[in-house]
Amino acid sequence: MPYRAPTRDFAFLLDHVVAFDQVRQTDRFTDATPETTTAILTEAGKLCEMVLAPLQRVGDQHPARLENGVVRTSPGFAQAFGAIAEGGWLGMAADPEYGGLGLPQTLATAVNDMMSSACLALQLAPLMTQGQIEALEHHADDTLKARFLPKLISGQWCGTMNLTEPQAGSDVGALRTKAEPNEDGTYAISGQKIYISWGDNDFTENVCHLVLARLPDGAAGTRGISLFMVPKFIPDADGAAGTRNGLRVVSLEHKLGLHGSPTAVMEYDRATGWLVGKPHQGMAAMFTMMNNARVGVGVQGIGVAEAAYQHALGFALDRKQGKTPVTGTGPIAEHADVRRALSMMKAEIFAARAIALANSVAIDMARASGAADWAARAAFLTPITKAHGTDIGCEVAGAGIQVHGGMGFVEETGAAQYLRDVRVTTIYEGTNGIQAMDLVGRKLMDGGEAAFRLLQEIEDGAEAARAALPDLAEPVWQAAETLREATEWLVAQDMQDRFAGATAYLRAFARVLGAHYHLRAAMAGDGPRRALARVFIMRVLPEHTGLLVQARAGASALYALSDADLAA
Amino acid sequence: MPYRAPTRDFAFLLDHVVAFDQVRQTDRFTDATPETTTAILTEAGKLCEMVLAPLQRVGDQHPARLENGVVRTSPGFAQAFGAIAEGGWLGMAADPEYGGLGLPQTLATAVNDMMSSACLALQLAPLMTQGQIEALEHHADDTLKARFLPKLISGQWCGTMNLTEPQAGSDVGALRTKAEPNEDGTYAISGQKIYISWGDNDFTENVCHLVLARLPDGAAGTRGISLFMVPKFIPDADGAAGTRNGLRVVSLEHKLGLHGSPTAVMEYDRATGWLVGKPHQGMAAMFTMMNNARVGVGVQGIGVAEAAYQHALGFALDRKQGKTPVTGTGPIAEHADVRRALSMMKAEIFAARAIALANSVAIDMARASGAADWAARAAFLTPITKAHGTDIGCEVAGAGIQVHGGMGFVEETGAAQYLRDVRVTTIYEGTNGIQAMDLVGRKLMDGGEAAFRLLQEIEDGAEAARAALPDLAEPVWQAAETLREATEWLVAQDMQDRFAGATAYLRAFARVLGAHYHLRAAMAGDGPRRALARVFIMRVLPEHTGLLVQARAGASALYALSDADLAA
Repeated sequence: MPYRAPTRDFAFLLDHVVAFDQVRQTDRFTDATPETTTAILTEAGKLCEMVLAPLQRVGDQHPARLENGVVRTSPGFAQAFGAIAEGGWLGMAADPEYGGLGLPQTLATAVNDMMSSACLALQLAPLMTQGQIEALEHHADDTLKARFLPKLISGQWCGTMNLTEPQAGSDVGALRTKAEPNEDGTYAISGQKIYISWGDNDFTENVCHLVLARLPDGAAGTRGISLFMVPKFIPDADGAAGTRNGLRVVSLEHKLGLHGSPTAVMEYDRATGWLVGKPHQGMAAMFTMMNNARVGVGVQGIGVAEAAYQHALGFALDRKQGKTPVTGTGPIAEHADVRRALSMMKAEIFAARAIALANSVAIDMARASGAADWAARAAFLTPITKAHGTDIGCEVAGAGIQVHGGMGFVEETGAAQYLRDVRVTTIYEGTNGIQAMDLVGRKLMDGGEAAFRLLQEIEDGAEAARAALPDLAEPVWQAAETLREATEWLVAQDMQDRFAGATAYLRAFARVLGAHYHLRAAMAGDGPRRALARVFIMRVLPEHTGLLVQARAGASALYALSDADLAA
Repeated sequence: MPYRAPTRDFAFLLDHVVAFDQVRQTDRFTDATPETTTAILTEAGKLCEMVLAPLQRVGDQHPARLENGVVRTSPGFAQAFGAIAEGGWLGMAADPEYGGLGLPQTLATAVNDMMSSACLALQLAPLMTQGQIEALEHHADDTLKARFLPKLISGQWCGTMNLTEPQAGSDVGALRTKAEPNEDGTYAISGQKIYISWGDNDFTENVCHLVLARLPDGAAGTRGISLFMVPKFIPDADGAAGTRNGLRVVSLEHKLGLHGSPTAVMEYDRATGWLVGKPHQGMAAMFTMMNNARVGVGVQGIGVAEAAYQHALGFALDRKQGKTPVTGTGPIAEHADVRRALSMMKAEIFAARAIALANSVAIDMARASGAADWAARAAFLTPITKAHGTDIGCEVAGAGIQVHGGMGFVEETGAAQYLRDVRVTTIYEGTNGIQAMDLVGRKLMDGGEAAFRLLQEIEDGAEAARAALPDLAEPVWQAAETLREATEWLVAQDMQDRFAGATAYLRAFARVLGAHYHLRAAMAGDGPRRALARVFIMRVLPEHTGLLVQARAGASALYALSDADLAA
């Protein structure tokens, strides 16, 4: 069963669940008409089904490899990246001044979702490039923009993010890479970076690295970090990729999954770099890129979940085992426990996707309107989209293996690859633990204002649905109330107690949000939409009670166990 | 950080949590003195630490392979299997008449747990052999017993289970392998079997296959199935492995994990077999083997969880990232969310292990006393031990990857292997969905009697703890009450509604049982035991509320979604 792009689901979500119309009505996004939206979903869907999906297994079976210092990518990846570039998908949301289409992030999110389903390993290359484009748009000076953006947007060149070093992972501030000023205004970058996704390739003319490094007068920690553009080839006078820069791929990682994506150890040896933004303000610039990438990574999880679900459903509608309850001779999808698993997978995907699209709508509205409320909404939802989308990716991929039974453990079936590939998404761009800490830390700094505004919307929605769908509306309203109380408790605690409940709180918030969007779908949709909402609200939403008990459990019990106790 | 056998934890569990003393006090198990118990845990622990654990990575990196029809096992596996056999570990619980030690299953469970931690791929060979020994003890005639048991118990030969065929997985009754009577009282077995764990090896003199097949007059479905012993080499007059039998390994599977364990497609072409038990009663005999194996597989999950936990803890106590809350310069284990993850992993392992050991105590008591109550207890706990133990195996292995951050996704670290290896345990020996259906179906056939007896014990335990530990006792008592109500509801439903809630019900039962054993530990133990119990009761137990809402959600909402809706 080949991947089928869920374009109708996206159209329904945009029209009836996440209120995409308000984005269209802004001056900035008047181009995102219903017709354009349909055309984009259809064209991107075709590209994913026909060009990308056939590469999913190829990348796994023929990993990217390093040959004499040159990265050789998996067969077919070069052509597919070319097709993505040619379709204009890299610059969908980019500035038209440099060749972008200037479309809403929401549509880019839908396209990224489909690309992630079709071939996650390849999709990571455009995702990194999109993040770099956005960082340059916000922070680079006009010269740098003119030099790099058109090439990145056209896909002639591509982009990477260089944060991590062996001693500096979640703690980016511990990095040691140095940037020394050259006389001509450029900088000499030296150091080692690890886990660089798509650190090199054999299909773009240039690879542009955004590298975090410390200037000689940079303070210790994150406040002394600056951001540099360090291309593999230094652009010549005509703007073409010119002479080789002082950087190289040292090695590629041997990973659990995502074999088609070369994950590089990079070495910079007095490589020429250009400062992006102001000195010592690199973290702010990098956060632009990371916030975009965080939503993008959450969407990767959702995309893989969709693909794993379709794959498992195809199997379950074909495989026959035992007498089935409905027709007696039906496939295993008729068995109650298998049907439960499939229904929950589908309901989870819908909920996580709605959250990611609502997050993207908030990003677009913030950009278009400049309103602080929208920016706060986008900021609040970002760690939820990232952590929850990727958690769901792992869970649905695991459930997909399970539906396959013994065949799920055999690599040829393809079910296991989804789990292997998606497993990194809970880790990179800030582990899901970091996301949860961001949510209960920075994102509740406003005293919970953004959270409470969201909860009010959820309760209003439940109130509005109460007459038509009382059995669905009531649990959603109740859950929002319980979450409101937990939020009030949380904002009154010190940071340690918040952090001790962070992961559970994030997950509970995602459950309540998911139920909210399912309720909207049930109000707008037909029988199947209501049935799916019922599955979510009766089977998934109830998790929030246990999670919110945990969210309020505090830190002291954790520290009552000493290191020695943990090791005993 | 190499694997360290948790022998003190086992001793505490046996002495203070699962009441192993009552097993010792039976006539059958007088040999299982405290001294013997200590010696067994110590010796098995050493074997696991020193001989088995070093092979964990070897098996993954040098998988078993098929060369010209001969299975070549991973380097070192032959010697390690020899050491296991020499130590008498294969026949720990086997009948002394044939060379076994006649020790309680409870001790075998502890040893299997440690072996699973140390090297799951290898441990599967003794586990299969132990299951075969038990099936032969219960169902084979004296001639077969005398011919096979001594060789299996000594480890000169080993055993496999042959159930699955391409069209007959969970639906064993669909099998097509034929058994035709020969004139000499043996049978000619013909057919293909798949997923045969340790289907062959290059270190035992013989490989004994227990094969399910249908006699010419066998009815369709499970009632027409018989069990046969089909050895690779037919024993000669002296009982030694003689002439080659008509069976061969067709191929080995390329699997997600467990690379050191050869998973074979077996072909039988008029191979000579001996009937085990009565004609057409093969399923009953196979269930003996499977019930043993189900507890054993649950324990595999727990063992891998322990190893993954130790591995992650070692990393978290070493790796430094960022300013930590306690000492400022400590390792990441000091960060609240990492400490939460580690504490929950440890608490989960303790709970799942207590359930498996309590299950084993019930098996021993049933054997020693013949009491129906104990047999019902053992039968009730078996699907919980299997499904929950393996779920926890996957979850803890996943959490172990997460604690490692980026390094968790890199294969060299070793964290990913635990997840790859353990992933099959939720599938084989009856998928966890099948286990859940067994629990709410067959195991509640008694109207819930076994369940209610267990719940009474839990409530009595909570009552007894109320004075000393009110904040821990109350939630356990409340949870047991909620579970009692759900059980009462469930036994009044038709099978479809039960099945629709089966997985959630099993998981909820495991949570309540886990809390019960943690409470016992808190009552008997010191500060750290209480702190760990608090982590479980405050953070894990609360899951039961959401799960029990789901358990009672019924089947109708699932079937309100048609196949077309699921695919839409």
